[in-house]
Amino acid sequence: MALYDKITIIGLGLIGSSIARGIKEKKIAEKLVGFDSNPDYHATINELNLVDELSQDLAASVEDSDLIILATPVGAYASIGETIGSHIKKGATVTDVGSVKSAVFEMLEPHLSPDVHFIPAHPVAGTEQSGPGAGYSSLFHDRWAILTPKEDADPAAVEKLSKFWASLGSDVEIMEPDHHDKVLAITSHVPHLIAYNIVGTARDLEEVTKSEVIKFSAGGFRDFTRIAASNPTMWRDVFLNNKEAVLEMLGRFSEDLTALQRAIRWEDGDALYDMFVKTRRIRKQIIDAGQEENVINFGRRHDD
Amino acid sequence: MALYDKITIIGLGLIGSSIARGIKEKKIAEKLVGFDSNPDYHATINELNLVDELSQDLAASVEDSDLIILATPVGAYASIGETIGSHIKKGATVTDVGSVKSAVFEMLEPHLSPDVHFIPAHPVAGTEQSGPGAGYSSLFHDRWAILTPKEDADPAAVEKLSKFWASLGSDVEIMEPDHHDKVLAITSHVPHLIAYNIVGTARDLEEVTKSEVIKFSAGGFRDFTRIAASNPTMWRDVFLNNKEAVLEMLGRFSEDLTALQRAIRWEDGDALYDMFVKTRRIRKQIIDAGQEENVINFGRRHDD
Repeated sequence: MALYDKITIIGLGLIGSSIARGIKEKKIAEKLVGFDSNPDYHATINELNLVDELSQDLAASVEDSDLIILATPVGAYASIGETIGSHIKKGATVTDVGSVKSAVFEMLEPHLSPDVHFIPAHPVAGTEQSGPGAGYSSLFHDRWAILTPKEDADPAAVEKLSKFWASLGSDVEIMEPDHHDKVLAITSHVPHLIAYNIVGTARDLEEVTKSEVIKFSAGGFRDFTRIAASNPTMWRDVFLNNKEAVLEMLGRFSEDLTALQRAIRWEDGDALYDMFVKTRRIRKQIIDAGQEENVINFGRRHDD
Repeated sequence: MALYDKITIIGLGLIGSSIARGIKEKKIAEKLVGFDSNPDYHATINELNLVDELSQDLAASVEDSDLIILATPVGAYASIGETIGSHIKKGATVTDVGSVKSAVFEMLEPHLSPDVHFIPAHPVAGTEQSGPGAGYSSLFHDRWAILTPKEDADPAAVEKLSKFWASLGSDVEIMEPDHHDKVLAITSHVPHLIAYNIVGTARDLEEVTKSEVIKFSAGGFRDFTRIAASNPTMWRDVFLNNKEAVLEMLGRFSEDLTALQRAIRWEDGDALYDMFVKTRRIRKQIIDAGQEENVINFGRRHDD
């Protein structure tokens, strides 16, 4: 028996389409309805047979659904909430996949009836690609899905949504929304911001040409270009909606960078060396925790 | 016929041992001598048969050599130069593989006779691993080797060293030392510094535990841990010996980051979006230039 009778996914980009693939593969829903406001995506969604029904009407798409998943940039939530709020059936679960979690309560709760279960979620998974063609069902395998229900959330609904993520291959963690936003600020948001930033700085240099930046990027720079190629709308919305935690972590990052800069200026080799030794061990711990592959140089090709 | 009769490699870590493998594979030398000051490496060097002779005497190792390659951290160059200077035969070429190029003239030239050809070089290639066991002969394939000879360098010696790097699979570029140091500051040195820094900042947070940093690292952070796992001694020496260019590029990076920080604080979504769109294209250009593999998410496993 399927976990949910009817599931609606709003937004069928990388994450939404990956969830759709997983739902179909694992037969998690009797019926899967999709909606995407971008008409350019519709042909691909239909060709790939990602959903049972691609709805052309956002409000109608959620009617009678047992699980409604918002998988759009978080900046669109309030307007989506306004449109769908009164069409959601009693006892249904509304969730999302956004990378920020405190802000989503303010955006969605005003539009939801008290007899709807609102349980925000964030699968910590993704690639630098976007759109329905970029998804794949194993995107969530061995990755963490973080649920951030309020304290008074219905335990059965939380349990069911946890099962949903487990069915897609994820490990599930329950977390306070504020704590989630701090953890992700340092493990995801600030790393993206500094990747975008270094790529921008390199791009704007006049003394060093763009062709040189590209030619000699194997010295380290190319690593940063991957996450700096991520979806611009999604990331704009993340920074606007996790402002406090991002600014706090960015302040720490800048403080630490200033200390390193000072060590370089004053030629304090011991301070640099001590710092570089400490950070070396973290990668091994990430590999040991199953959150990174145990391959050298990201498995970049070598011929022998 | 081999390109050089006798080659000596001083330092058989990742880079030196990769060169040694390439020399043997392509039969670039009649005789290959190696020296490494780290006795812990000797067993591996011998087991892997990396050189024809593993010398126990630095000065003697360069005698009668036609090409002497320094492949140690650059901080050791001056002392190596002092030891080997008077033992190098007339007409031999001395080169290196260091990531900084202006500073190496001051370190080595005082120790070299005018009838020795000093032609600094930098293969823009590497991995996060260190030591003689980590090397492989294809490390330099399709990567750039930058030579930074002085204007009065002997053209025939430069040509021969270019052929040497081409034999190892590299594309060769001739560059002014100062310009090299600026280009690499932005494409390699500052990226390493900010990777070390974000890993350090994350590691030191009290509100977010280290286990959380590791668990949720797939949000972007894990990418940075790769280059933050690079050889600490080598990188200390890079920063100490390319101080001016690193501080200059770091200044630009911090300025740009402050502007992004301000855009977040003032919720200037358009500024963020415009920036994120511009940086997106760079990765494709790097892939098109053959300096990165055309695989999603660094080719990290997905099962379908």
